[in-house]
Amino acid sequence: MLARAPLPVLTLDSEMRATGAAIDALFDAWLPLPDDGRRPLVEAMRYAAIGGGKRLRPLLVLGSARLLGVSDSYALRAGLAVECVHVHSLIHDDLPCMDDDDLRRGRPTVHRAFDEATALLAGDALHALAFEVLASPDTHPNGETRAELAAGLARAAGARGMAGGQMMDLAAEREPLLGEAQLAQLQRLKTGALISWSLQAGAILAHAGAEIRTRLGCYGDCLGLAFQIADDLIDHEGDERRAGKRVGKDAARGKQTFVTRLGPESARAHAEELAARAAAYLDPFGSRAALLQELAGFVAQRDR
Amino acid sequence: MLARAPLPVLTLDSEMRATGAAIDALFDAWLPLPDDGRRPLVEAMRYAAIGGGKRLRPLLVLGSARLLGVSDSYALRAGLAVECVHVHSLIHDDLPCMDDDDLRRGRPTVHRAFDEATALLAGDALHALAFEVLASPDTHPNGETRAELAAGLARAAGARGMAGGQMMDLAAEREPLLGEAQLAQLQRLKTGALISWSLQAGAILAHAGAEIRTRLGCYGDCLGLAFQIADDLIDHEGDERRAGKRVGKDAARGKQTFVTRLGPESARAHAEELAARAAAYLDPFGSRAALLQELAGFVAQRDR
Repeated sequence: MLARAPLPVLTLDSEMRATGAAIDALFDAWLPLPDDGRRPLVEAMRYAAIGGGKRLRPLLVLGSARLLGVSDSYALRAGLAVECVHVHSLIHDDLPCMDDDDLRRGRPTVHRAFDEATALLAGDALHALAFEVLASPDTHPNGETRAELAAGLARAAGARGMAGGQMMDLAAEREPLLGEAQLAQLQRLKTGALISWSLQAGAILAHAGAEIRTRLGCYGDCLGLAFQIADDLIDHEGDERRAGKRVGKDAARGKQTFVTRLGPESARAHAEELAARAAAYLDPFGSRAALLQELAGFVAQRDR
Repeated sequence: MLARAPLPVLTLDSEMRATGAAIDALFDAWLPLPDDGRRPLVEAMRYAAIGGGKRLRPLLVLGSARLLGVSDSYALRAGLAVECVHVHSLIHDDLPCMDDDDLRRGRPTVHRAFDEATALLAGDALHALAFEVLASPDTHPNGETRAELAAGLARAAGARGMAGGQMMDLAAEREPLLGEAQLAQLQRLKTGALISWSLQAGAILAHAGAEIRTRLGCYGDCLGLAFQIADDLIDHEGDERRAGKRVGKDAARGKQTFVTRLGPESARAHAEELAARAAAYLDPFGSRAALLQELAGFVAQRDR
């Protein structure tokens, strides 16, 4: 299963830059600008997808693939697919009927830079692109593997995953007294489902067995929670210019978050404890786990 | 390749009823109502998906599968997937930022019956469900086949297919002087791409060769155009109550359609000629082509 020697570990910073550049190059190749009435649609897709974001989900795919000796080129295609779904969700989340945000990654949101209809369609087309990428023969020579990747990503994106979590989030704004278990379920669906798929993608590409999938699942559960707490902290105490998006939204809406429940200091300590616990699940993999272990620390401490 | 004797051909009417019931049953099984904050999302998905529409695309999948001796049960799952994408597109098309319609299939549109955010997410979740269904092992035992179905449907749904056609349609409202070639391309993308995939689905499930795919492609091109002309005629002269949606929209927007270009009588004659041409492409298949040949006539003459 561990088919080749681990790659030399660069610093996390240069890994993030290299992955960002690789994902940008793939988006660029998949999204040539057409010379007809579809042009604004593809411009909007490129505007949303290229050059922005931390590319956390592609990095998680890459990390789980490296853990198991899978080639970076397969992992990057799977990472591109999950990033398509992620960017789709950001575009739709920002629309006036959802969060009604004007700013994302420090720039006008897609419906502000273009218009609402174009933003809606750009989100839809990126959603479709995810599955076009995953199901294409270049992504992996084995059709069973491609189908397993696609089935899992579709489940993670839909009513039993991210879209379901977004719906719970809307419901929670109307009826804000969520219990701790409901809050955890909401986050597990809304942000956890794509994170979890990203980690399982490496295992699917490697045809890994149950124990490895379980370890990646435990790592992902801790990481997902740490990620959400960090997000809540950014909203609570963040600097809008640095965050690149509107902050203070949760308090304005009376929304229950980990910060309102635990207070900011306990929340930060909890996130760091979760990151350490996540990393520990991967100790048996030795240096092959370096990227995922460093990512756990990054996720808990990030400020944007 | 023609692995079994043709099924007895029921009347088209009873085929349509049986397929409608089968698709409803599949939607019902895939969309159990959850007992948490996701409930309104799944209610909205069920509201949009169950009990409505002609199920034309599933019937086309079924027809192409029967042509090639593929089991109805595989065809119905592929038909469910394309219907998911179709219903997704209707929900999003009806939103205020797109066509802003209040009526669909004789009932309030999803964003009127629920709200805009729920409609947006229900469309997204149905989009994801399409790929979850296609990629699941129950849909076909061969992973390559499932991946080929998913890649094709994703392409048909995205910027190079339906979403691209919707974008061209929006652009055409601003700049209405489209040439005939542009009008044909718009329709080929907006409605033609899903129709074409539905017909290729039978060929993919049967691992059919190039000649069969070409014949199905020619049938689909003619059928798609006939379908669009019938749609334009319904908008031009239709009865809102019978159509179950707002009519007269095209003229109100000064939109170029086959009816404005050809006049209603020539348009109807052209649709019927296209249906006859579509049916003729399938003559070599004898009685196995019955369902698709009858569907061509139905599509050209439909009044809702």
